[in-house]
Amino acid sequence: MCQGLLARSLTGRGAPLDGLGPAAAWTTELAAEADSLRRALGRPPGLAIVLVGNRLDSQLYVQRKLEACAKVGIRASVDRLPAAVGQADLEARVRALCSAAAVDGLIVQLPLPPHINAAVVLSALEPAKDVDGYHPLNLGQLLLQAPGSMFVPCAALGCLELLKRSGVDVRGKTAAVLGDSSTVGLPIALALRSSGVGTLTLVVGDVNFASVSQVAGAITPVPGGVGPMTVAAVLHNTLQTARLRLAAC
Amino acid sequence: MCQGLLARSLTGRGAPLDGLGPAAAWTTELAAEADSLRRALGRPPGLAIVLVGNRLDSQLYVQRKLEACAKVGIRASVDRLPAAVGQADLEARVRALCSAAAVDGLIVQLPLPPHINAAVVLSALEPAKDVDGYHPLNLGQLLLQAPGSMFVPCAALGCLELLKRSGVDVRGKTAAVLGDSSTVGLPIALALRSSGVGTLTLVVGDVNFASVSQVAGAITPVPGGVGPMTVAAVLHNTLQTARLRLAAC
Repeated sequence: MCQGLLARSLTGRGAPLDGLGPAAAWTTELAAEADSLRRALGRPPGLAIVLVGNRLDSQLYVQRKLEACAKVGIRASVDRLPAAVGQADLEARVRALCSAAAVDGLIVQLPLPPHINAAVVLSALEPAKDVDGYHPLNLGQLLLQAPGSMFVPCAALGCLELLKRSGVDVRGKTAAVLGDSSTVGLPIALALRSSGVGTLTLVVGDVNFASVSQVAGAITPVPGGVGPMTVAAVLHNTLQTARLRLAAC
Repeated sequence: MCQGLLARSLTGRGAPLDGLGPAAAWTTELAAEADSLRRALGRPPGLAIVLVGNRLDSQLYVQRKLEACAKVGIRASVDRLPAAVGQADLEARVRALCSAAAVDGLIVQLPLPPHINAAVVLSALEPAKDVDGYHPLNLGQLLLQAPGSMFVPCAALGCLELLKRSGVDVRGKTAAVLGDSSTVGLPIALALRSSGVGTLTLVVGDVNFASVSQVAGAITPVPGGVGPMTVAAVLHNTLQTARLRLAAC
């Protein structure tokens, strides 16, 4: 996972980057924002998570999101669908949840089973409720660096926020992003680009933690690195969906 | 411009890549497709180009597109707007052209004057008529590698088609894209990624033709390189908009 690595050329120093402290500080700030949104909405901000199948990793990630939501006062619910769910049924469920009154934001937990076309499911999201920022319209706006881009995908937002809160200025630096997935690697590359990174290298593959830790100037541990920041970013983006709801009222 | 360079590691040989021959061959194929679409539509495929201001380079590019359209039987028209046109007026013109019956595809010639928010203008395009593939939805679909992605931006499509017609297999190779613009550099990177390139380096900057030609394994000349392929890609994408119109009937 690219989230394990921040190369020496980017940070320019040897310090390891801890995600737990910054994530806790960020979460405290977000709890205050959630409280003010709860008063403005007359109800807690609401997040719906669609979970397909029984993957243990997905269940773990969803559990962490639920715990974090509970901590800051976001009302989160999980819609569990069987691994054999059909494409049309899944899309219909996503559309129905997006139109539910108490749902400000929606996450479709990835990956989806291989028989499902994930890109089409993500396109069924309402862009203004797309907490993960994976709707093609939101990804395209990130690429276009459109002012008012609504959502930066959570792993990318978590990485950027970690760098910012760790005092790392990325402008003009050289960054290597390992992994070119549409949901993690590329959004991180785009978010770094929007922050003014001079040179981006996007490499197919993964990090061998043991060997990379010998050469990287800074590396985030797993667990306790980018993960907690990604979860905090989910809270951040969910509050952003609630703000959009308020603005639309 | 990144379009000047195809690095040694990508091509693995020293031959220069000529764009004129492949562009002529492609255009001949497209003329046959345009003729069959003309018969199916009962009129020639129609392309509208919005040209804002008096930039000489933009006027030249538009002129080349008009000439190429005339050659293959696409009916193209140019809407000229003053450089001082307002944001709302420009967006309204784009929307009006998109709803015109004889307009299958639309191009907003870039760059736009600095007082205009280009990303918002591009968002006013109808995605199914977006010949340049610059609507955020189309860019996002390219990023998501969505099946049925409608339009690959013309410079990127031209590059890929040039590589293909020159017998260069990009799979697993290392590619350096110089220039990280949303309209040329990044779409080329995404299109290469969709073709299975192993490592992508995206560098802010430009090519010094004189020095790069000393080290690059293959380089396309300007003029006569990627330019003619980009113009042929405009024809290709315009025919694709006409096909979508037919399919929607």
